[in-house]
Amino acid sequence: MEKGFERDFYRLFNPRSIAVVGASNQPGKWGFLLPMNIIGGGYRGKLYMVNPGEERVLGFPAYPSLAQVPGPVDLVVVAIPARKVPEVVRQAAEKGVKNVLVVSSNFSEVGGEGAELERRMAEMANGAGITIVGPNTMGLYSSSSRLLCIGAPVRPLPGKVGFVSQSGNLGVQMLTWGRRRGLGFSRFVGCGNSANTDITDYLEYLGRDPETEVILLYVEGVKDGRRFLEVAAGITPRKPVVVLKTGKGEQGKRAVLSHSGALAGPYELFRGAMRQAGILEVETTEEMLDLAMALSSLPVPPGARVAVLTLGGGWGVVATDALEREGLELSELPPELIRELDPHLPVFWSRKNPVDLVGNAHRSSHFVALEALARCREVDLLVAMGVMFGTNYWAEDILSTSVRPFLRMLSRGLGALIRYQLSLGKGVRRSVSKRGERSREGSGGINPLEAWKWSDRAMTRKILSLMKETGKPIIPVAVNESELSVSLRFRRARLFTAMTPERAARVAGHLVRYSRFLRENASGGSGF
Amino acid sequence: MEKGFERDFYRLFNPRSIAVVGASNQPGKWGFLLPMNIIGGGYRGKLYMVNPGEERVLGFPAYPSLAQVPGPVDLVVVAIPARKVPEVVRQAAEKGVKNVLVVSSNFSEVGGEGAELERRMAEMANGAGITIVGPNTMGLYSSSSRLLCIGAPVRPLPGKVGFVSQSGNLGVQMLTWGRRRGLGFSRFVGCGNSANTDITDYLEYLGRDPETEVILLYVEGVKDGRRFLEVAAGITPRKPVVVLKTGKGEQGKRAVLSHSGALAGPYELFRGAMRQAGILEVETTEEMLDLAMALSSLPVPPGARVAVLTLGGGWGVVATDALEREGLELSELPPELIRELDPHLPVFWSRKNPVDLVGNAHRSSHFVALEALARCREVDLLVAMGVMFGTNYWAEDILSTSVRPFLRMLSRGLGALIRYQLSLGKGVRRSVSKRGERSREGSGGINPLEAWKWSDRAMTRKILSLMKETGKPIIPVAVNESELSVSLRFRRARLFTAMTPERAARVAGHLVRYSRFLRENASGGSGF
Repeated sequence: MEKGFERDFYRLFNPRSIAVVGASNQPGKWGFLLPMNIIGGGYRGKLYMVNPGEERVLGFPAYPSLAQVPGPVDLVVVAIPARKVPEVVRQAAEKGVKNVLVVSSNFSEVGGEGAELERRMAEMANGAGITIVGPNTMGLYSSSSRLLCIGAPVRPLPGKVGFVSQSGNLGVQMLTWGRRRGLGFSRFVGCGNSANTDITDYLEYLGRDPETEVILLYVEGVKDGRRFLEVAAGITPRKPVVVLKTGKGEQGKRAVLSHSGALAGPYELFRGAMRQAGILEVETTEEMLDLAMALSSLPVPPGARVAVLTLGGGWGVVATDALEREGLELSELPPELIRELDPHLPVFWSRKNPVDLVGNAHRSSHFVALEALARCREVDLLVAMGVMFGTNYWAEDILSTSVRPFLRMLSRGLGALIRYQLSLGKGVRRSVSKRGERSREGSGGINPLEAWKWSDRAMTRKILSLMKETGKPIIPVAVNESELSVSLRFRRARLFTAMTPERAARVAGHLVRYSRFLRENASGGSGF
Repeated sequence: MEKGFERDFYRLFNPRSIAVVGASNQPGKWGFLLPMNIIGGGYRGKLYMVNPGEERVLGFPAYPSLAQVPGPVDLVVVAIPARKVPEVVRQAAEKGVKNVLVVSSNFSEVGGEGAELERRMAEMANGAGITIVGPNTMGLYSSSSRLLCIGAPVRPLPGKVGFVSQSGNLGVQMLTWGRRRGLGFSRFVGCGNSANTDITDYLEYLGRDPETEVILLYVEGVKDGRRFLEVAAGITPRKPVVVLKTGKGEQGKRAVLSHSGALAGPYELFRGAMRQAGILEVETTEEMLDLAMALSSLPVPPGARVAVLTLGGGWGVVATDALEREGLELSELPPELIRELDPHLPVFWSRKNPVDLVGNAHRSSHFVALEALARCREVDLLVAMGVMFGTNYWAEDILSTSVRPFLRMLSRGLGALIRYQLSLGKGVRRSVSKRGERSREGSGGINPLEAWKWSDRAMTRKILSLMKETGKPIIPVAVNESELSVSLRFRRARLFTAMTPERAARVAGHLVRYSRFLRENASGGSGF
């Protein structure tokens, strides 16, 4: 695009010094929030405040203009009214600055004069070899330099996901959701109006950025579709690129126009081309985050055959339907696998994929089934439902299942309560003496001696070691768990958990498509 | 179907006495969990335990057989091996029992002998006018009789949603999710193998059940499609019926067969017919719960025109795309509405639908925009994004945005900290004296005097009163909120909040389709 000069994105994300033009002491203003976040985020380089009306901003000396800032500046951050911004760019050019981030709005997104202003500013920047981030951007984040240069109250987790967003608002929200779910980011940048950049420029940089292992893009429109696809195709054989594309329909296109001013082209063509370039396209924001978590923690499956483990038939059917919608095939289970599982399950178990544990509450049989399926040569990916996780909820449920009858019996009088407790004691003693053995005609009976195996920690360890051993992804589904414990497990153990079987199937579909793409592109070489 | 006798579903859900055959003292067994739940759930009728090997079960006297239970029995619950069940049905027939719930598995779902056993049992039951719930059912729940007859640790919230599920496991999970999100149920029943019932029988009952206002069905297959559709069509003009249908593809059909033994027919035909009958079909379990919550708390919109309120363009585009996918149209905003909003928003606001508040942090302008859009004659439904809710997170975010810079400055020495605090004090004083006024070229500036308006309570009250006044649904989106506060708000104030704009759009699509169905069927009468 408007290149003709070498961009310095390394210094954009790792500036040694920053000047904030329009820095303010007044809460709620962009010029206040940005330096507050830069300071609070732990940025360690030089920080200059520019404000002609103040002697100090947030305790730092304030300079009347950028030109008067004493030292060299790697990044200028601008938060003043639009019409005053070109003068700042001029001063930046004189100072030899290479990156100017413009938070101010009222440029091309309003058309007319604003568009003209933006055009002039871009021209000036091009001439001086300056990359303008924005205008109308929410800012950027960079974990390696602890730079939180974002105009919103947000605290991203540091991590390995690089994220370029054509919406700052949506971008910031994804960082917040990421934090809540345990997903960390290496870089974030809001494109804003892309005065003299294209989303492709950022994508290209993230492709070679060693801090970034997974790339997310929120795309409303690209300036040069062909270049975007070429750059992406150069990255996808090494790093997954996930795209959420909007502005697909007519109303959506109009909404895009009045948001970022981008022109969204014919979507269907673009969609096919993205797939060919190995880009993983998601449909929703929720799916984008799910997939980012999965890609940053799961191995790519060796093939497309999926096994489903479930505690009851219904979830198995729901998962099968959802997997089928994704175009995946369910593994045919070999007879030796069925023989292996047979002694551990009730006589009436499915003997088919989905493997239905039919309510079997022996924890050891859950482990046996997981192991057998993960190791099976007919299985490339495993979706594990039922009570894989959720100790906290189960403990709560089981407690309430025990405490409430106790209270009810108490309310019937002491005699009733004593008789109840005596009966219960007898049952528990029998349970212990039988070690949970049961007639294979029933599925019930918990073995009190395997209680420790019910912990989420034991299951986490089992799944992680099976993934390591087999190189296949295992996606547990948290049908009985809170967001919080799912998130904590991801942060502590890097084990992704889908919130529903349908969301697990979406992720599985993407993993399988990516695996197919990688295999098809393995022979031809990735072009570098 | 196999009718020929009058079912007594009223007594199934409101039994005066229950006998549990196979009642046990041994934790983990069905025969243990079921009476524990019945007792703990607060059931107030007579409870008899039947177990030939025990003198007492859970403190209650145990009878050697059903025949030996002294009083009349409205509901028999059976949890013994399959081959012994027909004898219990025979005794139930002799006792004049009308409802037998069979938890035991190993019937038609395993084919062969099991199927034959089930056929014989059903024949006997038909002859005696007994409805068999199951076999292979997880049980039932009924709020009016405080009957928690479910073989899993679960505590449904009482409420107005009736739920029939062809999977017990999935059903129980939905009850648990419901509890976590604040959604209450009037009835739940797991169909199991439907020995001498069809899901239609339960649907028919819920249709005339005064305790039930919204009906959910998880359907793998129906025995008589025509009757199902007829019964549904008789209900939908009065109560919404939501269906999650699985077994759509080939693999899914096979999974259904080995689960409930049902034969799933050609889906596409069924789908169209369901729509014609006014049934709302959902695609995922998550969507089923979202819609149940929306239908039990929101008014049906008067038309199909949607307005979107957003704090940033990106979310507006995402919502527009998702609404378009649902076939909804975005309202054209009339000029007088634009004039009304103009003074409250920055000069560069969108002046179009989606109404983009462009990061405006004046709380009063959020209220103004909400009011204006809800009252606008071009708007039938409103999706409200941005910071409608989430005080707890905002407080946390803003606190961390303030505390972290404080700590950083402290680490630079006392002098730096003092200078920082002096600057900040000056800014805050200026903010207060300006009362958050700002140049309309900027969007920043928070008015400290409207702090109370930022509470979730103030916004809840505003939205509820606007819905009451206009009769239009308003769907706030919790882009910045936890599951817990969303759930608490639903329980306390019955205000539904969507977790993402895409999920809000799905719900909006269903509401608009249901509204169209109701209008089209208003003139013709609903047939009763």
